[in-house]
Amino acid sequence: MPPSLVRDLRAIVGEAGIVEDAARLLTYESDALPILSRVPDLVCLPRNTQEAAAVMRALHRVGVPVVARGAGTGLSGGATPVEGGVVVGTARMRDLLELDPVDRFARAQAGLVNAELDRAGAPHGLRFGPDPSSQKVCTLGGNLGENASGAHGLRYGSTAEHVLGLVAVDGAGEVIDLSQPAVDPLGYDLSGLFAGSEGTFALATEVTVRLIPAPESIQTLLGIFGDLESCCDCVSDIVQSQLEPAALEILDRLTIEAVESSVLAAGYPLDAEAVLLAEVEGSRVEVEVGAREIRAALERHGAIRVGNARDDAERAKLWAGRKGAFGAMGRVAPDLMVADVVVPRSRLAEAMARVAAICRERGLKLANVAHAGDGNLHPNIGYDRRDPEQVARVLEAGDEIMRQCVELGGTLTGEHGVGLEKLGSLGLVFDGADLRAMRAVRGAWDPEGRMNPGKLLPEGGDPA
Amino acid sequence: MPPSLVRDLRAIVGEAGIVEDAARLLTYESDALPILSRVPDLVCLPRNTQEAAAVMRALHRVGVPVVARGAGTGLSGGATPVEGGVVVGTARMRDLLELDPVDRFARAQAGLVNAELDRAGAPHGLRFGPDPSSQKVCTLGGNLGENASGAHGLRYGSTAEHVLGLVAVDGAGEVIDLSQPAVDPLGYDLSGLFAGSEGTFALATEVTVRLIPAPESIQTLLGIFGDLESCCDCVSDIVQSQLEPAALEILDRLTIEAVESSVLAAGYPLDAEAVLLAEVEGSRVEVEVGAREIRAALERHGAIRVGNARDDAERAKLWAGRKGAFGAMGRVAPDLMVADVVVPRSRLAEAMARVAAICRERGLKLANVAHAGDGNLHPNIGYDRRDPEQVARVLEAGDEIMRQCVELGGTLTGEHGVGLEKLGSLGLVFDGADLRAMRAVRGAWDPEGRMNPGKLLPEGGDPA
Repeated sequence: MPPSLVRDLRAIVGEAGIVEDAARLLTYESDALPILSRVPDLVCLPRNTQEAAAVMRALHRVGVPVVARGAGTGLSGGATPVEGGVVVGTARMRDLLELDPVDRFARAQAGLVNAELDRAGAPHGLRFGPDPSSQKVCTLGGNLGENASGAHGLRYGSTAEHVLGLVAVDGAGEVIDLSQPAVDPLGYDLSGLFAGSEGTFALATEVTVRLIPAPESIQTLLGIFGDLESCCDCVSDIVQSQLEPAALEILDRLTIEAVESSVLAAGYPLDAEAVLLAEVEGSRVEVEVGAREIRAALERHGAIRVGNARDDAERAKLWAGRKGAFGAMGRVAPDLMVADVVVPRSRLAEAMARVAAICRERGLKLANVAHAGDGNLHPNIGYDRRDPEQVARVLEAGDEIMRQCVELGGTLTGEHGVGLEKLGSLGLVFDGADLRAMRAVRGAWDPEGRMNPGKLLPEGGDPA
Repeated sequence: MPPSLVRDLRAIVGEAGIVEDAARLLTYESDALPILSRVPDLVCLPRNTQEAAAVMRALHRVGVPVVARGAGTGLSGGATPVEGGVVVGTARMRDLLELDPVDRFARAQAGLVNAELDRAGAPHGLRFGPDPSSQKVCTLGGNLGENASGAHGLRYGSTAEHVLGLVAVDGAGEVIDLSQPAVDPLGYDLSGLFAGSEGTFALATEVTVRLIPAPESIQTLLGIFGDLESCCDCVSDIVQSQLEPAALEILDRLTIEAVESSVLAAGYPLDAEAVLLAEVEGSRVEVEVGAREIRAALERHGAIRVGNARDDAERAKLWAGRKGAFGAMGRVAPDLMVADVVVPRSRLAEAMARVAAICRERGLKLANVAHAGDGNLHPNIGYDRRDPEQVARVLEAGDEIMRQCVELGGTLTGEHGVGLEKLGSLGLVFDGADLRAMRAVRGAWDPEGRMNPGKLLPEGGDPA
């Protein structure tokens, strides 16, 4: 980095907003997909839109790549600075700017952590819909960049469906203000398009999001199965009924073992091949009826036992196990690749069987969790990154999982984005004309190709 | 039009796919906003994507404007060929291509009529979420172009939230295939962005949409009010509760009179200043409880009486009145301008009062309907288009309504799009940088500026 640039940036964001020593820069070499990494040349942490605009203008003059970063919890490499350059982080943009409990929206700086927004909404009986498992640390801007979702995506959808507006700074430092909340976007829905754009358009500095009312009542059931297939079939059955559960999560045996041997100890039974965590939300009567019908479906599909969280503490424990599964799997292997594929919900059992075969054939350790109600599988493959041959096998298995899920009528990502991980597989779904249309839209935002280069779309040419 | 072009097009689409005589072309001079019109040079009606691509390539060689058109029921002038050129209609692309009752989606040609999709879904207990009042004739492609919504938008949102994919042909005749349904878009959400793009990007030839399960139970209530303000306040109150009605529609006195004196005669009481049509959907118990609480809210806000549709026939009658209100108002005045503004739902009564004052001051006849639960007002202003002075007053009132709704924290459109009607008002919400970003995205799809020119974004320069 030219010393004059660093001087300029320091003048804008202050000393605390510059990270340049090698040890601290290491933190920014990847997001939560450490299999691919590169240390950035510099990290810059503006405090607001105005500072961000000045920073972006300074970077524009020098012409370096810019990589936006929230909390770095992404799972597809979206925030990894693969082509070097400057990481612009939102860690010092954490303010809640407005919370309107009547019209139910919040306006916040992009670095606000999901859990903090929920805390602010709680006294009004409101909360943010998307609940990524990393919600205690991940940020609204990161959610937006990856179009994040979570266990309750079955009912509430992805971030795109909760973003009402945003303020962003483009690569030239121009501020685009689309922050006014609206039921229906006016003109082109650029805020909606921004969701999942992984920092390739511009840097979001403020986000306006919908808040949703907390339900009057919740019931959480745990169906315990002797085999994974019955558990999958139960989900396929429930989603075809008129029941509308808020969450339907599958965890398999290896995941259960990892969770139960960790500090989380959620109370999942160690004799199960799979558990189905099902949650129903709504009015008290609605929930009572819904829970009864889900219990019936669990029993019809051969659940060995059906548990029911008796209170909020038990419910929180069940969810802590699910949301902490990724962390708990540190016990299974030193490193973990979390795949993120989607299949038609009628073909869950078949897809799970195929994923298992792919890993078995390659001698890889597989632990499954799934937002099963959405058909969204997260096969977790354990490995040791110090062994290059093992790394190659993991990457190859990941590609094959994507290929087979597309073959089943599915797609490459449910909620983790394309990032680096899925660049090579986009050709399974899109042809040259499709990718050219996407590249043209990207070019409209970023004509110089400086915003998170090397992500989301493969370079030039048609897909293989 | 060059004769060679017409010959080429005829060779592609056949004789029945060409409209060139002056009388028939008149049909295409506007959509349902007749206040602005221009007769196209030619109309071309391809039968499928392949024909559409050949048509678009032929038009590209000649370099004429292209205006996409569904059923022409749009209300903001989106399908009006203001700069002449060729209207490419979807009237002969009406096939349902696939209906998957298990994974709940349908793939159809863009000219499929909403009601036909609902008919096809009915045996499977499925339907299409968006229910524009014109659903008996309007098309999926038109819904997509304008991001249409309807009375049940309160619960189900706009078309954008139901579109899973599409096939489109761009201005150069290139086919972009984004038709694979996915819970979460892969790469940029171009299908979502397409919603509301009003034919300025490309011509959609196929649409993949989500289907939703029909509810187990429905209850429809009619609250009768002695004043409009109490009716509005009742809505503001309900939307702030944990109740989640599927629809909350207001009709005012003049609208009621128009409906009741038409063939529709929905049974709305002639002594009311306003009625609130409220619908609750869901499981039987949920609906019973919900309807009871809505009745209580109606009574708390001073409803004179509360009616309840006793069966499907009564419910259908109530809805026919609401959905036919626009047509029935032919009795109020020879022409009608349907405005489409949004205000925060907490400020409904204030907004309605302001709209009334704007029309009163200008001596204009106002009849209100509103998707009140969404804060979406449709002030209907009656006029006679043969009187230029009256036309000028109507347009001026429309502008003032938009200005004051933005002042209240609202926006310019709820579901009818920008089209021609709101071009001049976009500057109330967007500044130069915002509009430049939108123009750049438009240019990415349509570098030659031939796709529906003169719509959605004001020409060049910054907004006034």
